Amino acid sequence: MVTKKLTSLFNPRVIAIIGATANEGAVGYALVRNLIGSGFDGIVYPVNPKRDNILGVKAYPNIQEIPDKVDLAIIATPAKTVLPIVEDCGIAGVSGILLISAGFAEAGEEGQAMTKEILKTVRRYNMRLIGPNCLGFIKPSIKLNASFANKMALPGNIAFISQSGALCTAILDWSIKMNVGFSHFVSIGSMIDVSFDDLIDYFGSDPYTSSIVIYMESLKDARKFLSAARAYARNKPIIVLKAGKSTEGAQAAMSHTGSLAGNDFVFDAAFKRAGIVRVDTIGELFHIAQSLSSQPKPSGKRMAMITNAGGPGVIATDLLMSKGGRLAELSEETIEDLNQHLSPYWSHNNPFDVLGDAGPEEYRKAVEVCVKDPNV
Amino acid sequence: MVTKKLTSLFNPRVIAIIGATANEGAVGYALVRNLIGSGFDGIVYPVNPKRDNILGVKAYPNIQEIPDKVDLAIIATPAKTVLPIVEDCGIAGVSGILLISAGFAEAGEEGQAMTKEILKTVRRYNMRLIGPNCLGFIKPSIKLNASFANKMALPGNIAFISQSGALCTAILDWSIKMNVGFSHFVSIGSMIDVSFDDLIDYFGSDPYTSSIVIYMESLKDARKFLSAARAYARNKPIIVLKAGKSTEGAQAAMSHTGSLAGNDFVFDAAFKRAGIVRVDTIGELFHIAQSLSSQPKPSGKRMAMITNAGGPGVIATDLLMSKGGRLAELSEETIEDLNQHLSPYWSHNNPFDVLGDAGPEEYRKAVEVCVKDPNV
Repeated sequence: MVTKKLTSLFNPRVIAIIGATANEGAVGYALVRNLIGSGFDGIVYPVNPKRDNILGVKAYPNIQEIPDKVDLAIIATPAKTVLPIVEDCGIAGVSGILLISAGFAEAGEEGQAMTKEILKTVRRYNMRLIGPNCLGFIKPSIKLNASFANKMALPGNIAFISQSGALCTAILDWSIKMNVGFSHFVSIGSMIDVSFDDLIDYFGSDPYTSSIVIYMESLKDARKFLSAARAYARNKPIIVLKAGKSTEGAQAAMSHTGSLAGNDFVFDAAFKRAGIVRVDTIGELFHIAQSLSSQPKPSGKRMAMITNAGGPGVIATDLLMSKGGRLAELSEETIEDLNQHLSPYWSHNNPFDVLGDAGPEEYRKAVEVCVKDPNV
Repeated sequence: MVTKKLTSLFNPRVIAIIGATANEGAVGYALVRNLIGSGFDGIVYPVNPKRDNILGVKAYPNIQEIPDKVDLAIIATPAKTVLPIVEDCGIAGVSGILLISAGFAEAGEEGQAMTKEILKTVRRYNMRLIGPNCLGFIKPSIKLNASFANKMALPGNIAFISQSGALCTAILDWSIKMNVGFSHFVSIGSMIDVSFDDLIDYFGSDPYTSSIVIYMESLKDARKFLSAARAYARNKPIIVLKAGKSTEGAQAAMSHTGSLAGNDFVFDAAFKRAGIVRVDTIGELFHIAQSLSSQPKPSGKRMAMITNAGGPGVIATDLLMSKGGRLAELSEETIEDLNQHLSPYWSHNNPFDVLGDAGPEEYRKAVEVCVKDPNV
């Protein structure tokens, strides 16, 4: 059920932009700009009670007037106006809401009370909601930029989920430069409804997603998250940058998204048990995301290790074993083949030592031969 | 009546693009691209029976389904499909049609028969039609680019009418580079309905148009054209480049727009009587258009002439008189003022000779002083 609603949310045929505006620079302008004329093959309806058109496209005063069933309603209006709009969406039969607006949980008690009412309404009408306080999401394969980021991500197979909108923009810029592509690029915001676990469930089953990369500041329901991660981490790498390690960082994350960041050691342990790869810097997140997007996933544990010195080979083997890896047993063909190309003193075994005087050509041959070995 | 319908055609609130398509490079694509998201403050409805959206905007299968009264219907479908579409437009209460499609008069007898039927239909429903076989029109002041040209003209006060679409594109490029602006920029096509005379009537009364510039290949109703020109040429300069002077040129014009170009000497004489400025090259048309756009129109005939040699001043005076001009009588203040700035031997009269050794500073002073003279 969860997945079905999210499928509709991420694959909308009809989108309403509530709070669409002709004021350049406004979020409701960027949303229209990103969705119209950008290759998205669906119908986009701007909603604005004060104008009959936005950018030359007929605007409707409210979602009920739209002559089509809306799959995704994007809301970018002031926080105080959101609750009745969400109710309208429910009445109109909307499946998914992307709530861009800020000013809820991070705005103290009043905001939190509004949040509760919004969530109740979402549940009552059996909708799903991403946000609030987020940048939106991008699904490059269908040229759907349901965000106010000024760029479209490249298509690929990484699902990226970020709790920080600003980081999204930075990663977007970086990914285009580095040619890294995404199946989905989601700014998740304050997660009053759709949370990390929902998206892990959804992307875990998505055939176009091969790895899930998360920038996390806080976790509301750790149990659900870890259970979802555990279910998919074996098949699809889940890489998490968990920010807010220090007490100060946790404080900052709390004021940013209105939720507690929790004790960091607990995360470390829990992530390890769930099979999540934890990284510490945005640099690493970038690096791993890039590696994942440019290299095939190993299909098993049987590794070939090439070195030009015995000692480092031993150290690396120890480390590999401690992490549960295995060294492949080389086939006779591989050994014979290597005999023809390497120095006669090479180790004749895995890890195979091509010796200190090996040049680039020997390395190249060694790699070529060992990737052909079915045991590797 | 004519003017009222043209007002609605040039100031549409609701536009339908019939033959809108998502195929990049097609005319029906360029039209949507130019009208949506370009600052035009009206509603644009793509019409296409095969798709539910064009560029993310809801598309309607035909003009009747559009929930608004359409002011301007732009038709860019194959010639054979146009007649029933024009009939549909009539039934839907459309005021003006812009018929982009080619393949009518220039396509022989069959095309001419279709043209007649289309015109009958246009008349029956009391519509007006620009085209067929044209690029469309641009009205920069309301950011309306109802053409498939890939640029928006700059705003200004020249109304430009061209019988050649290709020339339109060249002039558009040139005008942007030279910072020349237009009140209207119209590719008029084969003129089966709206013709030069209608547009002269319309632009002649348009307060935002100060001059009318025409590229003409052929003239269907010379009497109407000359009568319209005569009515406005005194107040607003009308500049015409009449192509097809040679027999070969006339032949080329005939096969291009399906109408006779006529005997050129007749045009020469008639233009002169109607007060039209005729130019011979596109260069001149450009030059005059540019001068008109960058200089105020003289409010009378009293001219001041500044020279640095007597002879040329005399020749220029002769020419001025032969064209009906007059030299202003300089006021005493002007003469005194000039005495202080010019060589004591200056001519002390109009044309005023600032003498051969006058530098830029003397010229500047002379111009400054004489424009202040109320007699000039």
